[in-house]
Amino acid sequence: MTSSDDQAVLARLQSVRALVVATHEKPDGDAVGSAAGLVRICRCRGIRAELWLPEPVPLRYRSFLEAVAPVRTLSASALAEFDALVLLDCARPERAALGPEWTLAQLPLPVINIDHHLDNSVSAAVSWVAERAATAMMVYELAATAGWTLTPEAATLLLLGLVTDTGSFRFSNTTPEAFRAAAALLEAGADQERVVNAVYFSKPRNQQEFETELLSRCLRRGAGGSYLYAVMPEELFARHHFDMRDGEGVIDLLREVEGVVIAGLFYARGAWTKVSLRSKDARFPVGPLVRKFGGGGHPMAAGVTLELPPEEAAAVIGGEVEKLLGGVSGEEGKHEISSR
Amino acid sequence: MTSSDDQAVLARLQSVRALVVATHEKPDGDAVGSAAGLVRICRCRGIRAELWLPEPVPLRYRSFLEAVAPVRTLSASALAEFDALVLLDCARPERAALGPEWTLAQLPLPVINIDHHLDNSVSAAVSWVAERAATAMMVYELAATAGWTLTPEAATLLLLGLVTDTGSFRFSNTTPEAFRAAAALLEAGADQERVVNAVYFSKPRNQQEFETELLSRCLRRGAGGSYLYAVMPEELFARHHFDMRDGEGVIDLLREVEGVVIAGLFYARGAWTKVSLRSKDARFPVGPLVRKFGGGGHPMAAGVTLELPPEEAAAVIGGEVEKLLGGVSGEEGKHEISSR
Repeated sequence: MTSSDDQAVLARLQSVRALVVATHEKPDGDAVGSAAGLVRICRCRGIRAELWLPEPVPLRYRSFLEAVAPVRTLSASALAEFDALVLLDCARPERAALGPEWTLAQLPLPVINIDHHLDNSVSAAVSWVAERAATAMMVYELAATAGWTLTPEAATLLLLGLVTDTGSFRFSNTTPEAFRAAAALLEAGADQERVVNAVYFSKPRNQQEFETELLSRCLRRGAGGSYLYAVMPEELFARHHFDMRDGEGVIDLLREVEGVVIAGLFYARGAWTKVSLRSKDARFPVGPLVRKFGGGGHPMAAGVTLELPPEEAAAVIGGEVEKLLGGVSGEEGKHEISSR
Repeated sequence: MTSSDDQAVLARLQSVRALVVATHEKPDGDAVGSAAGLVRICRCRGIRAELWLPEPVPLRYRSFLEAVAPVRTLSASALAEFDALVLLDCARPERAALGPEWTLAQLPLPVINIDHHLDNSVSAAVSWVAERAATAMMVYELAATAGWTLTPEAATLLLLGLVTDTGSFRFSNTTPEAFRAAAALLEAGADQERVVNAVYFSKPRNQQEFETELLSRCLRRGAGGSYLYAVMPEELFARHHFDMRDGEGVIDLLREVEGVVIAGLFYARGAWTKVSLRSKDARFPVGPLVRKFGGGGHPMAAGVTLELPPEEAAAVIGGEVEKLLGGVSGEEGKHEISSR
């Protein structure tokens, strides 16, 4: 567990001249938005800032990074030119996206750790871990506190993070402060249409076809209907040329169904199975459930990778979900959800 | 075209002792939220207020009306007990939901007209028609200006309207003011989880099955892929026991696809075909297109009912859409959308 100090982080960010910014592997919208947003803010302040991103980001976010021009690899001598590395939205040190040549502990420069995952376990020179809707929201707050200029481009990137991680202001992490930050970002010139078109209205045709087949063939129910999940065979991905790294939002197809309290996705990655879980009811959080197996995330949105084939992973997790949902089942579950 | 005067409307609302509140036929989330929200605000001020709603609302909104207890019919003598009728979110007089016994012109009491459809053509004693994200937003502004108390229940209803009409802050009508109103509604105690669960996470199982079949079997493309539409046979509805009145959001399944600029739905209602159109690009508005045929709505979201079978309606509208999209086609269209 790390200390949580926005002032220390801000002081450090105000004292540096050159920064590397990094985030977690398999970057999502908040990783891309918060990291590229901070890079643009720093550059606007006259600070040298580079985005270090060893892997490609999902297609829908690619155009947001064009002007930022991420670097893929950094040698020890290249790293020596920077005062610090800012790590954003990365809850665990082993998930930092630094390429095959580096681990966080080996880095020859101090780490500034900023994250909204409360279970963040990164060791850093300074850390700010706080309950916020998105890490982009924390970058916005730093900029607002320090009075840093938000260009329209930086505002667009921070809005991308905020929109992605709140499900466009639908998830339970949506606070009045998140709404007010969105208002301020629009006023700073954020291109909301571009963000929304990328996140919600740019579903590739093959993804729609993949999803249609998933809904037709892979759905299963448990806990009297309050648990809806899908076990996806590898050939489903192959047939539609679909990569789950581009699949943010697929689980919402299950979550959105009436009476569902917990939604789950299971898919094989070689000998492992990746599991994503979402809860719609704060009384039945999935975060603690996956942590039993070494997973992580938020109380209502969490995931874990198990060294099991998909059917066995589904059996193990399904047993835990049934236990968790215990009292809720079928019509009763439906009633409890709709009557609160 | 009506005059637009928020002060006159506010003065009238402050001078009445008993109000009937009505909205448009086939009420959606903004109709339900703005009308029931105003009723609750008035009752809290000690004003007698009744919601006049002759028809049932979509299933997902029903629980929001329980405490308000709408009246289905009002006789002339019952109407005589009220000082005025407030008509909310209703762009055209013939669409006012007053049951088979009344038209707006025959009503024996003055009409206060409040609407965010700029093409509103209602004649009224006082009118306020303005560009806002939702009519619920206008009710919120009246309450904020007048200093009326917003109970958590009223705030929940206004948030329902705002969330529905902005597609949870994704559509182009989302302004900084809309975000700030949402923040204030949350602070007034709005139950966001209930609103979001009703609008987005309460899809009936039969609707999911209906949609899966629609996506598998009914999609068609025009304008080189930038127009995506579905012609839905009546038996599709019958097989899934699905009523399009519960189908808010179905068109988003088409709109969300990459490269699509205009999305359309066509379905038969007896000898008529109902057409819904959505645009993703302000350069290609669908509002003017449907107005040629007597339809209405907003620039980016509009509809019309044609006295034609679905295939012929699709041919007529498709011709207009192809003309409108003219320059945009296939990869070019895709590029124009993704590059802005």
